[in-house]
Parts: sequence; C-alpha cells; structure tokens
Amino acid sequence: MSHGLRPGPTNSLVDVSGLRIGHAQRVGDGWRTGVTVVLAPPDGAVGGVDVRGGAPGTRETDLLDPRDLVERVHAVVLSGGSAYGLAAATGVAELLGDAGIGFPVGSAPGEVVPIVPAAVLFDLGRGGRFRATPDAAMGAAAGQAALAGESLRWGTVGAGTGAVAGGFAGGVGSASAVLSDGTTVAALVAVNAAGSPVDPATGELLGTRLGLPGEFSHVGTPAAAEVAAWRPPATVRSFNTCLGVVATDAALTKAWCCRLASIAHDGLARAVRPAHLMVDGDTMFALATGERPTPDIAAFNELLAVGADCVSRAVAHALLAAEGWPETPSYRQVFPSAVRSF
Amino acid sequence: MSHGLRPGPTNSLVDVSGLRIGHAQRVGDGWRTGVTVVLAPPDGAVGGVDVRGGAPGTRETDLLDPRDLVERVHAVVLSGGSAYGLAAATGVAELLGDAGIGFPVGSAPGEVVPIVPAAVLFDLGRGGRFRATPDAAMGAAAGQAALAGESLRWGTVGAGTGAVAGGFAGGVGSASAVLSDGTTVAALVAVNAAGSPVDPATGELLGTRLGLPGEFSHVGTPAAAEVAAWRPPATVRSFNTCLGVVATDAALTKAWCCRLASIAHDGLARAVRPAHLMVDGDTMFALATGERPTPDIAAFNELLAVGADCVSRAVAHALLAAEGWPETPSYRQVFPSAVRSF
Repeated sequence: MSHGLRPGPTNSLVDVSGLRIGHAQRVGDGWRTGVTVVLAPPDGAVGGVDVRGGAPGTRETDLLDPRDLVERVHAVVLSGGSAYGLAAATGVAELLGDAGIGFPVGSAPGEVVPIVPAAVLFDLGRGGRFRATPDAAMGAAAGQAALAGESLRWGTVGAGTGAVAGGFAGGVGSASAVLSDGTTVAALVAVNAAGSPVDPATGELLGTRLGLPGEFSHVGTPAAAEVAAWRPPATVRSFNTCLGVVATDAALTKAWCCRLASIAHDGLARAVRPAHLMVDGDTMFALATGERPTPDIAAFNELLAVGADCVSRAVAHALLAAEGWPETPSYRQVFPSAVRSF
Repeated sequence: MSHGLRPGPTNSLVDVSGLRIGHAQRVGDGWRTGVTVVLAPPDGAVGGVDVRGGAPGTRETDLLDPRDLVERVHAVVLSGGSAYGLAAATGVAELLGDAGIGFPVGSAPGEVVPIVPAAVLFDLGRGGRFRATPDAAMGAAAGQAALAGESLRWGTVGAGTGAVAGGFAGGVGSASAVLSDGTTVAALVAVNAAGSPVDPATGELLGTRLGLPGEFSHVGTPAAAEVAAWRPPATVRSFNTCLGVVATDAALTKAWCCRLASIAHDGLARAVRPAHLMVDGDTMFALATGERPTPDIAAFNELLAVGADCVSRAVAHALLAAEGWPETPSYRQVFPSAVRSF
C-alpha cells in the first residue's frame, strides 16, 4: 500500500490545499492549555465525525450525521479545558460570522451561521490552576492565527499545550501523504492519552513503525540503559482524550467523511495503547475539500488506509516535537538516544 | 392509559421534584431571543437525548450515549440564536462550576466539570438584528434565575421568546402527569416549527386533543368565520427547531432516558405537523432524578406513553400562553373564539 507514497511538501494537514491551522495557548501563572483551529476554505469543507472515546466533550457533532442537512464545516476547533473549553468554539464562530463565513440562512449576504464543530481534551490543573481554561477569546486568537496563515508549529502548542500521553508531554502533530493518483490525505492530532504512545518493552514510539520510507530515519530504539531506567507512570486515573482531524482534497460525501473519521481511530489505536478508554473522549473529525474528483472504491480504500497511517505518524511527530515541563518530561528527554540529531 | 391520570400541582416540569427552570430573554433594539435553563438537583439527573431534526445545533450530546461514562447531567440549556446561541451553555457551565456543581474530576472538592448539554433553535433576525443572539451572560442569567427558583412563566419567554410555529408565536410550554403508581413525568418544550401546531381544517390546536380530563376545557374549535379568514403562512423556508426536556422522578438508566427522549418526538409529531424536517433541528432531552424506584417494563411503558403526551400537551400550552408581536400573531389573536375567558 505504501509503495510510491510520499509525504506532501510540509508533511502536515496544510498539504490539503485550502486548509489553514492556527494555535493559541497560555502557559504560566497557573495556565497550561490552548486551542488549535483547523480552518476550511471560506465556502467550507464537507465534514464527518466519529466519537469513539467513553468520555467525549463535543459541540456541533450531531449535524455531521450524513442524514442531516448541513454538508460543510467552516472550522474545526480542538481545545483543552475539558467541557469548559467548548467556549473556544464560540470565539471562532463569532470571528467567522463577522467575516461573513458560514452557512447562508438569510437573504442578506452576511446572514450566515458558521458551522464550527469542536471537541475538547482534559488538561485541567496541568498548569496549576484548575479553572484556567480556554475561553472564547483564546478560540478567536487561534482562529485569527489561522486566518493570518500562521507558520506551522508542532509539539507543545495549541490544544496540545497541556497534553500528556503515557507520562510524556503529548502535543500536536501532523503528517500527510500523496497517493499514487495525486490525491492528498493528511492528519492533525492532539495527543492526550491515558494509554501510551511508546512500546513499553523497547521504548520505541509506536507511531514511527507506520512511517513512510525515510520519514523517521532519525528516530530509533532507545539505548537499553535508558529503557531500563524508565519508570512508566502507574495507570493514569485522570481524564484524557486524543483529538484529530483527517483531511483530503478528494471529493467525499458526508457519509464517506464519517467513514474516514472512523478509520482514523484505527490509526490512533496503532499509535497509542490502550486508546478509547472510558476516561478518553477520543474524537476524530474528517474534512474533504473536494478539489479533486470523487475516488472510486479502490481509491477510497487506499485513501482510508493511508489516512489511518497519517494519524499514527502524526502521533509520533507530536511526541517528537513536544517539549517537557517540570512535571512532565518529553519523549526526547526520557530517551535522548532514540533521536539522532543532525 | 389515561384513566386516573392527573397533572401534577403546577402541570409543569417542576412537578418532577428537584428540577428548577430559569428564563432570560431580550426583546427590543433588534433583539427577540432568549434562553431557558432546566436545572437538575446539585448531584445531577441521569440524562439522555434524541436528535431527530435534520439541522440540529447541539453541545455535549455525544456523552449521553448510554455506552459512555458520564451518567448525570447538571443542567440542560435550550437557547435561541442558532449555533451562535450555544454560547449560552458556557455561561451556565461557568456558573455551575463556580458553585462547585459538576462531575468530580479532581482531588479537591471544587474540581468539577459541569455537564451541560444544550440545543439551539433558529430565531435569527426575528427582532430585526440578525446577530442579536444569546451569549454566555444571557445563559448565566437564565441559570441564575433557575438557581433563585424563579416563578414559573410560560409562553413568550426564554428560548421561546423569538419562536414561531406555523405563523403563530411559538413560545415555551410545559405539562405534567402523575401516574397511577405516583410516578411523575413531565415535559417542557420551546415550539419553533416549520410545521403547524394547528389543524388547518378546523383551527384546533393539535396538542389539546391529548389533554388530560378537563385540562383544555377552556379551549375549543374556533368559530368557522375565524378559520375562513385565517391565511396560514406559505411553506416556511426558514430554519426552525422544537426543543424539549422530558423528565421523571423514576430511576432510569441512561439508555432508558434515551428511550424517553426518543418517544418524546412522537409527542412532538402529534402536536406539530410536519415535524422533523430537514430545516428543523428538533432535539429532545430526558432527565431522570431517581427519587422513585426503577419501573418495571409495564410501568416504563406507561411512563413513555404518558411522557409523549406531556410533550403534545406542552406544545398546546406554549401556543396558548404565547404573546404575539407585530410580525407574528399569537394563536389567541388569530382565533379569539377558541379560548374561553373566565
């Protein structure tokens, strides 16, 4: 399946032409949380969702049911702050509504309702103050960063700012792939898991095993001494949640977008073990910009399989880019020998 | 089924002991919208939901999946403002969080996440200004009214402030019933429908046909001349949505709450025709406070049937209580002969 596959130019979600990403975050003074916005083109992208964790926190997911009216999503908001963080979507919706971007519902041009599905992850108290959570203003700041075409940043940014996975700093990561027919599929994830992104026996990042040729050639198995010294955290009892967006420039129906969101959870399952627990709110969105034609079944199968792998790879990139903080080391801090520096 | 049935003391949702209702609204200066909050007891009520309209706007509905962790809901927010109005839930969540009411997630007593599912109805522009929509502050005001045990008000209040159904002012209505075994079931609805709550041939309010003995004895078929003079509006092309909460003091599982929310849509279907169109976001929540025991199947069947009827009756009460405004007459204004005054 991976013969001839290569990442897109940035190996990230924005390789799907028309998508933009913006982060906002706050660290210090009790804070350690943030918001990541994935902005669709102004006329939206066809959207789908699959909520697979046992403790989700979501907004505007029902309308993504393929039986429902609204086809196009204008932005997806991933936020820290647990349910409090759903406030971030308000800021994004107001921002887009002010810009006249949204589902047209009136006779005048600006009479739109922006479709802004959102999901939240649990990072309460990770900066010290329990109620230091993203609000509408932080959501708007992330939305504005996306509108401004902010340069790409990964790791401990946006929704991944307070993310923890298996005792490591979690973070935001992304990956993309260009299929043999030229279609692009890509994923962005915020990795905040009760489970671990690391093979407990070897210390390897699980997601690197799904890498494209050469993608993780600078990453290997850590030295035995580092693995022996590593004390994985006891079973995590707090809440968590991995959030993600998988996107493609193919034309997909809402139903097929939901299928793409569904298989994205397989990619999560391969990169985080266990995933989808009762204390995870794991939620995956899918966006299809439709710049390229509708795939046939064989091509859609390839898109699905490669899309799932993009999620696994994005998890590994998140962990590799994340920066630790006093309570939570990064993967690179725990296993310095695993990452070759150039 | 209705033998021996009687309404509770207020014939409203608060006959389910422990539930409180609060409204906030704004009319004039471009505004005509509002928020209704149904507040559960401080330790919550078991919750369920069924989203049946084709254009829903919702928040925190996914977690009500019976397979998921969180069982108890702390408040349900019904709001105008279409998707913009989801902001109202933020104000309620912050208010409850500040009061230490919510799902406990930390070690300290105040470390809670309030579970506040919400759904919105479409009333944009009905006060003149398209973007005059409920925000977090209006949500908090409705929540505070509920906490204060505001006196019961129906009709053109709260989420029903800008509601329109079949060309009539829609409004908020409620109804309750006490079953033979002493269990109470009740409903609250905000009626904003593309369809009509009125029999087009006779001008009768459809929901009155499901009334308990004597409940609608002051309401009848309007005079033939009024019906002949009535010009029902052409097919409504705007968006709409009926929202509701059905509640009981029985102990129900989440799955049975979802079943109760599901059958609530039958009550809506009997009182509004057509309902559940692609331009409706019809959403029904269910709450079970569990003060009384779990019903057996026969008793739950009765609760379901009577609960559906409570929704139909609540729709009729909403229309009877609603007050018209210049663009939108009330049912009583159009058919004065249908309502006997005492």
